[in-house]
Amino acid sequence: MTLRLHNFFRSSTSTRLRVALNLKGLEYDYVAYVLRKNQHRSPEYLALNPAGLVPALELEDGTVLTQSLAIIEWLDETYPDPPLLPTDPLGRARVRSLAYMVAFEIHPLNNLRVLNWLGTQFDADDDAVAQWFVHWVTATFDPLEAMLAGSRETGQFCHGDAPTLADICLYSQIWNNQRFSIPIETWPTIARIFSDLDGLPAFRNAAPPNQPDAE
Amino acid sequence: MTLRLHNFFRSSTSTRLRVALNLKGLEYDYVAYVLRKNQHRSPEYLALNPAGLVPALELEDGTVLTQSLAIIEWLDETYPDPPLLPTDPLGRARVRSLAYMVAFEIHPLNNLRVLNWLGTQFDADDDAVAQWFVHWVTATFDPLEAMLAGSRETGQFCHGDAPTLADICLYSQIWNNQRFSIPIETWPTIARIFSDLDGLPAFRNAAPPNQPDAE
Repeated sequence: MTLRLHNFFRSSTSTRLRVALNLKGLEYDYVAYVLRKNQHRSPEYLALNPAGLVPALELEDGTVLTQSLAIIEWLDETYPDPPLLPTDPLGRARVRSLAYMVAFEIHPLNNLRVLNWLGTQFDADDDAVAQWFVHWVTATFDPLEAMLAGSRETGQFCHGDAPTLADICLYSQIWNNQRFSIPIETWPTIARIFSDLDGLPAFRNAAPPNQPDAE
Repeated sequence: MTLRLHNFFRSSTSTRLRVALNLKGLEYDYVAYVLRKNQHRSPEYLALNPAGLVPALELEDGTVLTQSLAIIEWLDETYPDPPLLPTDPLGRARVRSLAYMVAFEIHPLNNLRVLNWLGTQFDADDDAVAQWFVHWVTATFDPLEAMLAGSRETGQFCHGDAPTLADICLYSQIWNNQRFSIPIETWPTIARIFSDLDGLPAFRNAAPPNQPDAE
């Protein structure tokens, strides 16, 4: 099966999907879109994904899957080894909940189109945009740190000693945070997990600076 | 099993979870929090859910599940009948993708804490907040309408003729839209699906006006 990944090196939802593909040992063709140049709003891409968002995963038969976490659940159901979720329902709920704290409470507020809109709609300058970004990261990372540090289910990674969906979301978000120089040391458990994740080739090779379209 | 639902009538993530519990035929104790009075930031609630967000589902043994979509996946795994996702992986990916378009691209931008922050941080008045809200709804509902109208997999509901996770997210968002008087007729397929969903007791009984804490 030849997979085509439509994505952008710096997009953290794209990073999530690259990590998942790497963990599953799946090769893919890398198709890059420069968001700043609105390449993801071209008629060609909108025909592929009417939502006009990256990433999208195109299967060999032309089927196009959208929404990073929907695609990752599909990957996990279709290529179960290694699993990205635990087998027990309560463990799955914990992993999804940690993943969604990052994916729902931070990322949607801090992606490029929202930051741009703050500028055009509210005349936000760079400092105001940075303050917005840091605010939403902190509002979630503070309780996330407490939940990770306070649970015996946290291991080397967010849930036990194998990477899961929660680690995929966390790792990708931290690359995003670095654009605003947010010091990870504020959250020691998160910092420790990030450091260990960054030592795994599946994660490291998916990181923004290591992509062919990196600037 | 006695379930305790910590929630707020108007919170659309709470509405999602009420619909899912109703579809599964599960009874629950209703515990209400007035967000405007910051009751979800009390020490008692933060001890239960350090993220300080509603909803949370408390199980009989004291286990607390958080993040509406993580809880709904847990419900679907634990009480499989009726299913909230199709059985085939591509169908599951489609349903999750439609659900996440609403859950990731609209709701996180339009919940109360974000709207409040626009006021305090950017001096946004009611008109500017409404414009923000409508902008993010439209940016997703336009492609969502096209994707629903253009797919043979759309049936009476978002995916076939039984309600799924996608319908749960869509229905809950539309109640939110009504607070800003967004006319649903702009999106005829969405309007038709909403109308049919609203005829189902599991949905109707979960709607904000029908909750004990409704104002």
